[in-house]
Amino acid sequence: MGAAMAGVARGLASGAKPSAGRAQFKGVFQQLRTELVDELGASYEVPTELQEYLDYMAQYNVPGGKLNRGMAVVDTVAGVKGAPLERAEYFKAAALGWCVEFMQAFLLVADDIMDNSLTRRGVPCWYQSPHIGMDAVNDALILESFIYIILKKHFRNSPHYVSLMETFHDVTYRTELGQLLDLKTAPADDVDLSRFTMAKYNQIVKYKTGYYSFFLPVSLGMTLANVNEPQAFADAERILLDMGRYFQIQDDVLDCFGDPAVSGKIGTDIQDNKCTWLVVTALERASPDQRRALENNYGRSDAFFVEAVKSIYRDLELEAEFRAYEAAAVAELEADISGFDHFDARVFSDLLAKIANRTK
Amino acid sequence: MGAAMAGVARGLASGAKPSAGRAQFKGVFQQLRTELVDELGASYEVPTELQEYLDYMAQYNVPGGKLNRGMAVVDTVAGVKGAPLERAEYFKAAALGWCVEFMQAFLLVADDIMDNSLTRRGVPCWYQSPHIGMDAVNDALILESFIYIILKKHFRNSPHYVSLMETFHDVTYRTELGQLLDLKTAPADDVDLSRFTMAKYNQIVKYKTGYYSFFLPVSLGMTLANVNEPQAFADAERILLDMGRYFQIQDDVLDCFGDPAVSGKIGTDIQDNKCTWLVVTALERASPDQRRALENNYGRSDAFFVEAVKSIYRDLELEAEFRAYEAAAVAELEADISGFDHFDARVFSDLLAKIANRTK
Repeated sequence: MGAAMAGVARGLASGAKPSAGRAQFKGVFQQLRTELVDELGASYEVPTELQEYLDYMAQYNVPGGKLNRGMAVVDTVAGVKGAPLERAEYFKAAALGWCVEFMQAFLLVADDIMDNSLTRRGVPCWYQSPHIGMDAVNDALILESFIYIILKKHFRNSPHYVSLMETFHDVTYRTELGQLLDLKTAPADDVDLSRFTMAKYNQIVKYKTGYYSFFLPVSLGMTLANVNEPQAFADAERILLDMGRYFQIQDDVLDCFGDPAVSGKIGTDIQDNKCTWLVVTALERASPDQRRALENNYGRSDAFFVEAVKSIYRDLELEAEFRAYEAAAVAELEADISGFDHFDARVFSDLLAKIANRTK
Repeated sequence: MGAAMAGVARGLASGAKPSAGRAQFKGVFQQLRTELVDELGASYEVPTELQEYLDYMAQYNVPGGKLNRGMAVVDTVAGVKGAPLERAEYFKAAALGWCVEFMQAFLLVADDIMDNSLTRRGVPCWYQSPHIGMDAVNDALILESFIYIILKKHFRNSPHYVSLMETFHDVTYRTELGQLLDLKTAPADDVDLSRFTMAKYNQIVKYKTGYYSFFLPVSLGMTLANVNEPQAFADAERILLDMGRYFQIQDDVLDCFGDPAVSGKIGTDIQDNKCTWLVVTALERASPDQRRALENNYGRSDAFFVEAVKSIYRDLELEAEFRAYEAAAVAELEADISGFDHFDARVFSDLLAKIANRTK
């Protein structure tokens, strides 16, 4: 607690009416969705029933999350400007924010297939929906394509058009490389805990989550708001990748110890042999007996083995360890944010406030 | 036969040393591959063993095809110029050609997962390789990302950079929409032959194959060669989409009646309930009894049912029907090509010569 938590509380209190902001942001999704569907008929000869299918597919996968990533683009543009956005400015920023949400949806649909996941946001994963199955691979690709359709429609005449496309290409690539590192570090069919180190974990998290979830929306907002000092981007990247690491560690803890009724998903990290902060920390602290037990039980799908792993996590008091890590991480992030001097840093503290102590 | 075939024979004879051209074109792949792998280490912190994995993955999936698509970019640039390409010009055209081949690889890796295919180009499909499985979804995405890494490295300072990126975005989207139409017209779990019409078939083929296999490489070459009359692109599009339809009809016939030892793949269209030229044509000609038999046997994986469908195709003499279609299609294409007057049309007749009467 103390200064760090107090800072977070201030961050939360200073956030402007989250529900009103959400409704306004969601309104832009309705417009983009309508434009995309209309263009499917007008320019791509897609029959009505498939326009409706894609509309449903986008509705199912895109807007159901917390929308922190997308709204961070709007908050960044407003933060750099230091004043409320005019209607057209708001629309552009929100459209870019929705591109981030489309990217998130594209990645989640694909990841759920690769991870063999069951539920997402409290409903079946898209590929688990009736009559979808592996067709979801193509649906994921279409969600990705929607990003570039939106960019072309709304940014083609912007001086930032090339930069925006390149940012999406680059961050998509980084995220795929992070997913590769994750998959190959922890193949479902080959449990070998010696591959799990904190250095490897940090790299997976940075590439798989940090770039697209934290760096992408803020850097898009900075670009749109005409920030161009490389040092501003470098400082933002450092803060945001650290925040991404904190976020992923929370995710790992929630996957194991969270409440599926709250989080909307049933954790499978232990079964899936994932390189998580929990298993890496457990391996750092385990006695030889505990390490052997982890090796025998990790990465197996039967509930008995999963419970054995969780029991070792409990013996090693990893939840308390996480609370201590969390307090230190928040304090460090607040210190780094307070030194950020390129524009009003509240976008960073607001983002931190949204994720600190989250339960979903 | 007659004029059409003679024209094709001339086309073949006039092609410049295909093996030498292939070797030179493949040399550019070696350079691009090396650049991509080096950058994985230098800019993306990818560890050596995963650089090697991605190198192997690209080798496995990208250069093993006929390379007609990629080399068509080079042929187009040379055809528009009307003279041999200088070294730097050749490299740029070939790099773009390899972008088309990366796109083809990306699409095939993903399609094989969705179609549950077993072999491709005489070897197991990538997702069927040991220890790959659903990780292949991410590998497909990385193959797609390589396109934009190559474009950024070699075309960032070109006046065509935006146009090239947009062309890849647009053609990728069209191909995904074609795949969607294909998947939803012929879902594996719901056989309903009333959905199969020639109009639907034509649309699937145009979007799923025509744009990326035929229009994409030529239009990229035209862009690189500074062609900018819209009518030239429109005329090329019409010819190339017609050629794509002919190509796909060949593909459908080879899937059913081709020799797997020659084609390198084992056909599964009947089992997969695909909307093919064969089944659409059969439905147009079938007696009520034959139609009922098709309805009872199509889209089922057991060899007995597959053989029953092939037997109806034989009774309806669809192979002879195909030969007649082929002669007419080639003649029409030659007539259309002979009217093309924006630049030397040999790129079109060479493309046609490469596919006419193919057995793989």
